[in-house]
Amino acid sequence: MFEKIFKNLSEVKPVVQCITNFVTVNDCANIILACGGSPTMSHHKGEVEETAACCQGLVLNMGTLYDYDSMILAGRKCNELNIPVILDPVGMGGSALRNKTFEKLSENIKFSVIRGNASEIKRIATGIGSTSGVDAIEKDTITEGNVYDIAAMAKGLSKKMDCVIAVSGAIDVVADEKTACLIRNGHPIMSKITGSGCMSTALLGAFCGANKDDILDACAAAVADMGISGQLAQRKTEKFEGGTMTFRTFLIDYVSTMTTEIINREINIEKI
Amino acid sequence: MFEKIFKNLSEVKPVVQCITNFVTVNDCANIILACGGSPTMSHHKGEVEETAACCQGLVLNMGTLYDYDSMILAGRKCNELNIPVILDPVGMGGSALRNKTFEKLSENIKFSVIRGNASEIKRIATGIGSTSGVDAIEKDTITEGNVYDIAAMAKGLSKKMDCVIAVSGAIDVVADEKTACLIRNGHPIMSKITGSGCMSTALLGAFCGANKDDILDACAAAVADMGISGQLAQRKTEKFEGGTMTFRTFLIDYVSTMTTEIINREINIEKI
Amino acid sequence: MFEKIFKNLSEVKPVVQCITNFVTVNDCANIILACGGSPTMSHHKGEVEETAACCQGLVLNMGTLYDYDSMILAGRKCNELNIPVILDPVGMGGSALRNKTFEKLSENIKFSVIRGNASEIKRIATGIGSTSGVDAIEKDTITEGNVYDIAAMAKGLSKKMDCVIAVSGAIDVVADEKTACLIRNGHPIMSKITGSGCMSTALLGAFCGANKDDILDACAAAVADMGISGQLAQRKTEKFEGGTMTFRTFLIDYVSTMTTEIINREINIEKI
Repeated sequence: MFEKIFKNLSEVKPVVQCITNFVTVNDCANIILACGGSPTMSHHKGEVEETAACCQGLVLNMGTLYDYDSMILAGRKCNELNIPVILDPVGMGGSALRNKTFEKLSENIKFSVIRGNASEIKRIATGIGSTSGVDAIEKDTITEGNVYDIAAMAKGLSKKMDCVIAVSGAIDVVADEKTACLIRNGHPIMSKITGSGCMSTALLGAFCGANKDDILDACAAAVADMGISGQLAQRKTEKFEGGTMTFRTFLIDYVSTMTTEIINREINIEKI
Repeated sequence: MFEKIFKNLSEVKPVVQCITNFVTVNDCANIILACGGSPTMSHHKGEVEETAACCQGLVLNMGTLYDYDSMILAGRKCNELNIPVILDPVGMGGSALRNKTFEKLSENIKFSVIRGNASEIKRIATGIGSTSGVDAIEKDTITEGNVYDIAAMAKGLSKKMDCVIAVSGAIDVVADEKTACLIRNGHPIMSKITGSGCMSTALLGAFCGANKDDILDACAAAVADMGISGQLAQRKTEKFEGGTMTFRTFLIDYVSTMTTEIINREINIEKI
Repeated sequence: MFEKIFKNLSEVKPVVQCITNFVTVNDCANIILACGGSPTMSHHKGEVEETAACCQGLVLNMGTLYDYDSMILAGRKCNELNIPVILDPVGMGGSALRNKTFEKLSENIKFSVIRGNASEIKRIATGIGSTSGVDAIEKDTITEGNVYDIAAMAKGLSKKMDCVIAVSGAIDVVADEKTACLIRNGHPIMSKITGSGCMSTALLGAFCGANKDDILDACAAAVADMGISGQLAQRKTEKFEGGTMTFRTFLIDYVSTMTTEIINREINIEKI
């Protein structure tokens, strides 16, 4: 599964430009390198158009809300050049400024993918709901009981925004308007480190950057890679009697050593 | 010991807003998650009042001296809403700008806790002394020979500032105007990683956020958690033949797996 | 070898001020601590002259292109006080803004050392060439076939800029106008983590800060320390069945436990 996606990734070695928050920027750069890409975190408005023109994928992360002008400049340039743009609407619903920033970005930029947790994606899909901090709030947790509703919401939002929607949670959902992939990998400890979401978005930038004609499958592969790396990292952490930081180390380790053989052995994916 | 403090922490799962420096921001977010809190590093002045209103604890860290306006806005909002505000006066005494920033912050915000190394706290208490870089200078090291003087200084400063004072060092001191706790845990290797101090302050934000009616005990528990995690991490690092980065990983690991049983077994605390 | 260099490092415990990018700032602070220095990441233009006056080494890293004014202020102050200034021209050749920033910095500041990858140094030496992202581009890779040409280029640039030139790659080159040291240590996995280059530059700040009368040897020692730590870390990572993040942890670990005995045993250095 995903053999073509991983082959393209290793051949293209996509340069992924990230305009992202300073909390998890180092993790994002490292996970892009781990999967075989080349990160550039350039975000000065005096150069982003020039640097974006040399990348294969652009990641815009709303985490700390600075660099809005740079996001617009880089996003438009990538739209012009048909380079995939991935948005992570961190904390969407958490403040008026975040909601407004999302609106302006989506008015000016055509995204290939939007990835968020269930609270963030729900807020975009429905215009209602809020978040507290940057984690999905409890009533928005994805469970076996609501995952098909969330998949339907993702398909609807995909149609409305004309882009792939990735919803992260206990079950991950990746959808375009016709197909939703439910991926049952990962482990709850992933929510105990900062940057799980940001790193997923960074991976999407690399996978989509190398596979721009197959965005849905690229997203499913990236999400599966992250989830499987998470569950393998958790097992190794347990054996090592480690905690959350050992887990983070092992998570990126597994991304750096991932193969399609491991994907095939571990993946739990349902297409609907 | 500290059973109530830890119980509240795990039940409240405090959202801790940090306006902090970009050097150690990732470590701070991770240690808040490790102890059971939920970090938000939002610091844009366009939203900090709104996001601060949703948190249980606010951490202001003077490390890189940006975001002064955001600190004032968030701090005042938390004062209004009776949410504990923790200050880390990083590098206090190291430049005129730092001294002035501290003055302005303390004129505008009522702190629940100030945590610093001995050089920083001494500078605040006495208005004299300086630092070189961000580490405590050698003559300010806390030793068995001067710890009771430092405890007296902390008590006096607590009375003057009407807040709990936490002084970090070879012996940690946590004091209100009546009681000082001397905590003899930790290990010298803690000073060989960046962010030991910032992470302690972040932990204080979580512990105080979940225990706002018992700030002194919350501080003592957080400081003990950090110190005990440090000494356990050092032992594991030694067995593993690791160095300073392995130590940092294990330090946060131990915070993520800390229990009151471990605290009771390892704590070395003296109240005076 | 380098006994005097390491002795000075451990005695001076140099305060190293870094005005650097936010992607790898935490790694830079940690590696300075690991080698025995004391980092300060102060970069607010309101205080950098004051803080720079207290440091033994200044590192300027062009990674994210902010804080240009602070770099000029701190650089000039260090020039006045005869404190070594190390420049890392990250991404040189990657945008017009970067090229212009380099020009302005070099017009205003006298550097003791410039360290970059082969693409960046070549761009400075020749005024032509470009980079894509922040990694050296493939045709600029240092090999046994071109290393003597690169050494000659580094000597020439050293003469022109009146500073030591350090070129990082599969073979590291450190040169003043008369002597080039070719250091064949390190491991390709070093290019799979972000910050290998930035951390090398940070180490140079500490080694030169403690050895300002012997900059060429200080640079060779720092580069050897980094390379040897890298190859030892790779071996341990392999045994541990780890990936790129485990490698990063072990890399800094080995810097924190480096001795001249290990240097003598592992170094592969050729002077020409």
